[in-house]
Amino acid sequence: MQELRVNGKRLWESIMETAKFGAMSRGGVSRLSLSDEDRRVRDWFAEACKGARCEVTVDDMGNMFARRSGRHNAAVPIAIGSHLDTQPAGGKFDGIAGVLSGLEVIRTLNDVGYCTEAPLEVINWTNEEGSRFAPPMLGSGVFAEVISRDFAYSREDRQGKKFGEELERIGYRGSARCGEHRLSTYFELHIEQGPMLEMGGKTIGVVTEAQGQRWYEVTLTGQAGHAGSTPMHLRKDALLGCARIVEGVNRIGLDHAPLAVSTVGLVEVRPNSPNVIPGSVFFTVDLRHPEDDMMAKMDAEFREMMSRVAGESGLGVELSEIYVRPSTEFDRACVEQVREAAERLNYKYREMVSGPGHDALYVARVVPAALVFIPCEGGISHDEAENARPEDVEAGANVLLHVVLARDATTFEGKHV
Amino acid sequence: MQELRVNGKRLWESIMETAKFGAMSRGGVSRLSLSDEDRRVRDWFAEACKGARCEVTVDDMGNMFARRSGRHNAAVPIAIGSHLDTQPAGGKFDGIAGVLSGLEVIRTLNDVGYCTEAPLEVINWTNEEGSRFAPPMLGSGVFAEVISRDFAYSREDRQGKKFGEELERIGYRGSARCGEHRLSTYFELHIEQGPMLEMGGKTIGVVTEAQGQRWYEVTLTGQAGHAGSTPMHLRKDALLGCARIVEGVNRIGLDHAPLAVSTVGLVEVRPNSPNVIPGSVFFTVDLRHPEDDMMAKMDAEFREMMSRVAGESGLGVELSEIYVRPSTEFDRACVEQVREAAERLNYKYREMVSGPGHDALYVARVVPAALVFIPCEGGISHDEAENARPEDVEAGANVLLHVVLARDATTFEGKHV
Repeated sequence: MQELRVNGKRLWESIMETAKFGAMSRGGVSRLSLSDEDRRVRDWFAEACKGARCEVTVDDMGNMFARRSGRHNAAVPIAIGSHLDTQPAGGKFDGIAGVLSGLEVIRTLNDVGYCTEAPLEVINWTNEEGSRFAPPMLGSGVFAEVISRDFAYSREDRQGKKFGEELERIGYRGSARCGEHRLSTYFELHIEQGPMLEMGGKTIGVVTEAQGQRWYEVTLTGQAGHAGSTPMHLRKDALLGCARIVEGVNRIGLDHAPLAVSTVGLVEVRPNSPNVIPGSVFFTVDLRHPEDDMMAKMDAEFREMMSRVAGESGLGVELSEIYVRPSTEFDRACVEQVREAAERLNYKYREMVSGPGHDALYVARVVPAALVFIPCEGGISHDEAENARPEDVEAGANVLLHVVLARDATTFEGKHV
Repeated sequence: MQELRVNGKRLWESIMETAKFGAMSRGGVSRLSLSDEDRRVRDWFAEACKGARCEVTVDDMGNMFARRSGRHNAAVPIAIGSHLDTQPAGGKFDGIAGVLSGLEVIRTLNDVGYCTEAPLEVINWTNEEGSRFAPPMLGSGVFAEVISRDFAYSREDRQGKKFGEELERIGYRGSARCGEHRLSTYFELHIEQGPMLEMGGKTIGVVTEAQGQRWYEVTLTGQAGHAGSTPMHLRKDALLGCARIVEGVNRIGLDHAPLAVSTVGLVEVRPNSPNVIPGSVFFTVDLRHPEDDMMAKMDAEFREMMSRVAGESGLGVELSEIYVRPSTEFDRACVEQVREAAERLNYKYREMVSGPGHDALYVARVVPAALVFIPCEGGISHDEAENARPEDVEAGANVLLHVVLARDATTFEGKHV
């Protein structure tokens, strides 16, 4: 099967087809987790998998598993997965390219009538993005027992709608208990979401580890008042405090560059009226570093900076750390199989550290796993301008195909079946 | 009629009754201009005025005029007015106290069967707040020919709904042409929205002039990107630029204190997701100063600061000045009548400059006008915590009553009727 290759054109067309669910005016996709658009792409995906002779099951976190039978159906499946949800103004590839590459691997095997030893599965994990329901990766997080089901169900979007209720509403709360579904190994393809592969002229990123990450939610409380009649020295302007913290958060990332990154991505000002001094501001902070001790240092610096600014500005502060993810090392054997496949297929590759979080990071805690990156244009993602080249997506899917075949060949090595 | 006083209890009860339209959980009111709640309070007001034997007319900006006949109905009416719309999370008094004090003056005259020479009118001006449709004071602005009707109709809220369409929708686009309705004099009562009266132990503020004001809308454009994989030095973070401008705007106010104030009140971050570097930020800037030449200096400093920050941060900037209001001096004779009434009624008063904009500022351009302030608790307004004391509201209404009576007594002085 060394000569077998995926059908890149079919894969590309599938990606373009799913991009219609939540299509935006400038080429992007808005498909928030558990929205009607998410339901529609899930329905499409389930049908496409059934068309590829897979059986589709859904667990009680809405994670979808499409299984193609192997010779030994009692064997634990090899899985490929990612997510179909997007950012509020995201692109066509983030997550989707990974799920549909898995589907393409199965379609390719169907084309030549190849039967693997173990079953193969393609997985769509629920709520990877975390933009509607924070924190991100709720589906794989509950799967890996990092996040409790009750916590996940209780998460609310900015309109106060609960994750559990929305899952029920779109009809994707399955009966199988999340976490009980067994996998032998897990591989995920994803666009890099950074500029390094493109800048280095590489096609494949062999991801060896992932950054640690912390998410915080902050509410600063001052005193709303009339913008025309409240003298400057009597103000408690919550936005002014927030502005200073945005500057401070940026400083922490710069101080620990090049490995650190730090971001304030979401801000809500209240009451948000041009002639009212902001009485309170809610915002999020995202800190990342590949080394856990440096991550701890950044956390301490952030907390110190925040209390100082709030104190100086006369503001009340409520801080909650809603998400802590230590750095992750991927399974050495799995990573090695990715490297070998890239080499055998003659793709230029490099090893790298993942900045973004991915479902693979959680899955890796309970199943041997690896993560494969492909380039994206200008390193841009989480934006309508996100783009990838058909030949790179195809190359990534070919790596998945060959990793899975190599893995499958060793499934029963030295074992009695 | 020197002994005549308004019924403070009835006035207070009217204020509490209108506070139900758009009531919020912490005692405030959310009654944005041309919303369903605005329609309901308008309906209530029209009924109440009819109940006080007034004839209600509406012009094509939705401004409402409730007229009580006088002895000489061909005479141009004396008017009392303010507005019934509120901030998104405003209070029970801002605007409302002025309109309902006007109604109370009429009810008081009805109680004793007193007939004025000229007709009296109570006015509700449309969209004073400007929080749904910027700029503020559209109704009185068109009345005074400072704002064109077409511009007003075309203003959009943040959902893209147009002022003209919403006015039509709530059924308050009258047939009379705004600006053609004649007034002989105009008086407005308003809470101070600042702490000076309370701090000085005064009941009445005799407003002699009002600050100039400029409003700007700004859009900063950078590049959205993944918070985990975009190195700090490659970022174009629009929120970081906004944070620096918020700091700079605050600095301009401080540099020209105590007379200057400067505020960023509304911010919208896009795409506003915790793990996305903000690609663009829209925000408003409000600068005020009672002296026009200092206002011009602040404007120049603001523009210079903004280009510098945008340049240094690698951001695109779109700036539009959506509102310029020069400082206003009120009619000397009208101001003097307010002072005399406060003195005669034995209320502690002081002269003052208005920071906030008010309908009276526009009306003053075409009709002799004056503005009366009463204290509000802690100087707080534009917030649910906004509060005023019943005795202060009553005092303000008594000043209006006696100003109107004094004015009316001079209506035909020296003239043949």
